[in-house]
Amino acid sequence: MNELQKVLDGIAAPSAEWERKAQERLDQLTKPPGSLGVLEDIAVQLAGIQGTVFPEIKQKSVLVMAADHGIARAGVSAFPQEVTGQMVLNFLNGGAAINVLSRQAGARVVICDVGVASDLPDMEGLSQCRIRNGTANMAEGPAMSREEAIVAIKLGIGLAQAEIDSGANLLATGEMGIGNTTASTAILAACTGCDLAEITGRGTGLDDSGVNRKLELIRQSLQLNKPNPDDPLDVLSKVGGLEIAALAGVILGASQRQVPVVIDGYISSAAALIANRMQPLSLRYMMASHQSQEPGHVKMMAALGLKPMLQLNMRLGEGTGAVLAFNLVEAATAIIKEMATFDEAGVSGS
Amino acid sequence: MNELQKVLDGIAAPSAEWERKAQERLDQLTKPPGSLGVLEDIAVQLAGIQGTVFPEIKQKSVLVMAADHGIARAGVSAFPQEVTGQMVLNFLNGGAAINVLSRQAGARVVICDVGVASDLPDMEGLSQCRIRNGTANMAEGPAMSREEAIVAIKLGIGLAQAEIDSGANLLATGEMGIGNTTASTAILAACTGCDLAEITGRGTGLDDSGVNRKLELIRQSLQLNKPNPDDPLDVLSKVGGLEIAALAGVILGASQRQVPVVIDGYISSAAALIANRMQPLSLRYMMASHQSQEPGHVKMMAALGLKPMLQLNMRLGEGTGAVLAFNLVEAATAIIKEMATFDEAGVSGS
Repeated sequence: MNELQKVLDGIAAPSAEWERKAQERLDQLTKPPGSLGVLEDIAVQLAGIQGTVFPEIKQKSVLVMAADHGIARAGVSAFPQEVTGQMVLNFLNGGAAINVLSRQAGARVVICDVGVASDLPDMEGLSQCRIRNGTANMAEGPAMSREEAIVAIKLGIGLAQAEIDSGANLLATGEMGIGNTTASTAILAACTGCDLAEITGRGTGLDDSGVNRKLELIRQSLQLNKPNPDDPLDVLSKVGGLEIAALAGVILGASQRQVPVVIDGYISSAAALIANRMQPLSLRYMMASHQSQEPGHVKMMAALGLKPMLQLNMRLGEGTGAVLAFNLVEAATAIIKEMATFDEAGVSGS
Repeated sequence: MNELQKVLDGIAAPSAEWERKAQERLDQLTKPPGSLGVLEDIAVQLAGIQGTVFPEIKQKSVLVMAADHGIARAGVSAFPQEVTGQMVLNFLNGGAAINVLSRQAGARVVICDVGVASDLPDMEGLSQCRIRNGTANMAEGPAMSREEAIVAIKLGIGLAQAEIDSGANLLATGEMGIGNTTASTAILAACTGCDLAEITGRGTGLDDSGVNRKLELIRQSLQLNKPNPDDPLDVLSKVGGLEIAALAGVILGASQRQVPVVIDGYISSAAALIANRMQPLSLRYMMASHQSQEPGHVKMMAALGLKPMLQLNMRLGEGTGAVLAFNLVEAATAIIKEMATFDEAGVSGS
């Protein structure tokens, strides 16, 4: 825990001075002030993080954490639990959506087994860091111990910082884990007190009776485990997941090293919520990518105070929405660097 | 008019057969059915348009139409009218936001003077097709004649088809014209009967009294000219703009040649509304890019039945939002072509 506390204490706010300088430059560029909206916000955020008016994206990586959920065996997903491991193999073979979109974006894909329940072969490109064979069924007791949650967070910190050491200066969160919209919904309800009926969704494709079953199991998990909303580690260990813990670590590790992280959809946002509750300054390093079709995601974004850039009705996870948003982050860096000022272009002001 | 009617009559629906085949393939790929949302919709749309399960984007162009508005001299914009011509020069020198974002997207920028009011030098890269030196003040009479609107539409058709002839198979609409949110708002109100108070916005940065003045001038223009909502050419000529007419032409010309068009923000959507009213099948070739901050844009999208992909609080125009969406269109083509199927990857179905 001391090691983790050191990371948390090491997270500082981006530079307000460089944010101000970036805003000044943006206001001189040939456009009505503020008219590039979120692209300007991102340019300012990056300027503060990188300490320059002309931030650059050098290397991008998406960190895909895979783990299983004990509650999946109680029937909360349209897909069987073995799909988690099968999809990890698909990632390693380059055939999944995250591979396709990362190739297009020019991003590296890092795949880590944090806690898959099925056997996986030794394969190139797989970080084997399994903490346990999936979580326990949270409807019958805590998903994992507090110690296991800390190990998973530290794992994520280490993975993020290894990517940064090898040159990445823009990260994205991704995940795979049958049952993980269930854990994410439990985290959201535990942290914010949201009404479960409003935030429990179809995940990968449940029908109405499946959604009702999922809702009842989440209610049961919360009643049994009584996660403490003021203790994010308690929430994470009792009703969370190993991949969610690792992603919270990715966000915290990147924040400590002053590298921004693009947050994917519902599950990644649950990790962001935990990271934010552990260290509010981590929010300053986050960028929201897409608005998931999962109904709780709006509340999750509101709880974080983030606004997604993409409205694509996606609900796949893996990091797919985050990787699609890399292009927008790069656009922001191009805008502040390459646009002409009113003076340079001889354009009249307002 | 006969020539224009020929283009309108030549617009056919995309192939339902290829749309179906594309949907079949998407449902076999390793993801929950429908979970890639709009990316799947785009893949299906492109498959129907191009007549293949594996559509490809070869060359992209954004067509930026510039023109002035007589009503600008009555004070409906935060910027003076001469900025239209100054920004055209900025486009030609590569210093505007549309240049920066098009370079990033690998798209060609086509700049056309359809009706700028100020003198412009002969410069490489400028299509000089000026129909008149800006429209007349629509608060005092029709913005232009019906014949001029038809000439502008035909100009847009010709520009789009010339781009297609030189290899472009994905187009985007862009524009520059001080005062053109005023014309677009008038078009929206004329076509749909929307309440002006709900849809009149700040444009490039009006204050409250400026917005009130703009609203009153639009009300006066509509009362004086009485545009016929059932006659899109009447609406376009009485309260529209030359660049808006040309963009309607771009959309119609591309649709006739079965090439998709990404629609930018508020002004481009006004052109899309006119094109759609002239030939409803043109909608099948449109893709909405971003949700403009301009308040009427939500109603404009609803009138078209389109949903924007990007939520960036942008309100710049020029084609900037459309060009940012090119990346998403290309992502859709990569998804349907490169993702593994459940069978290929050995992943269990739902």
